[in-house]
Amino acid sequence: MTLTTDQRTLFRQFRDYRWESVASQPYKEDGAAPFKTIARQVLFADAQLDCELRYFEIAAEGYSTLERHEHMHAVMILRGHGECLVGEDVRSVKSFDLVTIPSWTWHQFRATGGEALGFLCMVNAQRDRPQLPNEQDLAALMANPVTAAFLAD
Amino acid sequence: MTLTTDQRTLFRQFRDYRWESVASQPYKEDGAAPFKTIARQVLFADAQLDCELRYFEIAAEGYSTLERHEHMHAVMILRGHGECLVGEDVRSVKSFDLVTIPSWTWHQFRATGGEALGFLCMVNAQRDRPQLPNEQDLAALMANPVTAAFLAD
Repeated sequence: MTLTTDQRTLFRQFRDYRWESVASQPYKEDGAAPFKTIARQVLFADAQLDCELRYFEIAAEGYSTLERHEHMHAVMILRGHGECLVGEDVRSVKSFDLVTIPSWTWHQFRATGGEALGFLCMVNAQRDRPQLPNEQDLAALMANPVTAAFLAD
Repeated sequence: MTLTTDQRTLFRQFRDYRWESVASQPYKEDGAAPFKTIARQVLFADAQLDCELRYFEIAAEGYSTLERHEHMHAVMILRGHGECLVGEDVRSVKSFDLVTIPSWTWHQFRATGGEALGFLCMVNAQRDRPQLPNEQDLAALMANPVTAAFLAD
């Protein structure tokens, strides 16, 4: 039985980090924000759900956009390992680890482990748009040796 | 940096289907609904998130409560394999498969694969309480050979 949208198909099989009836989309709609080799699959998005569940996959040596926003991100690593910046913290992350990205906190994921880094990200369906760092923000991140080393990778 | 609640700890490591700073809780608060050998861990729940992400784990041969409710369930299998009833459909499910449980649809998960069956379940933070089948509901489920076979396992 299939309901009205793809995400409402009752059962969707997983195979090699793709799911039945789920399109692999570009990471960002526009090309304005810097990022490298990352794709997005929306696993659950529905008028009856107040959040969305997305799967992002960064190819080896790729990275997500360095950004911040009011809405929170609830992340579970699903595939591989890599590194993650949240605020002033940099951590190694591996499959099934959890990462919480609070409001207005700079964050970036990097597939530094020589393999793809894939993760689930739960967000509110109603949310604000991300903000990119300006020169002053970048200067502050580069003044901190921990975040500077991460961003220089 | 640790914020106010456990779920806001920025990084929480996974180890053997447990997570740092996450308590393993009973599946149901009360003992009124029938279920067998299942535990619950709340991975993400926060005033700023409109959904919760929980991990449920059913031991081999165990099962979740047969129930329905208005709110939708968005499920990803995380561990092992088993079987799942959604409405009149019964399917084998394995790691990373997706299951959508629409409003008012009878559903149950069973760890029939001789091993634990673990799954993520995303739900709205604001949601109704589950309803159990009455005699008439059970008679209808038992009149259908597919659902009857599943429930008789």
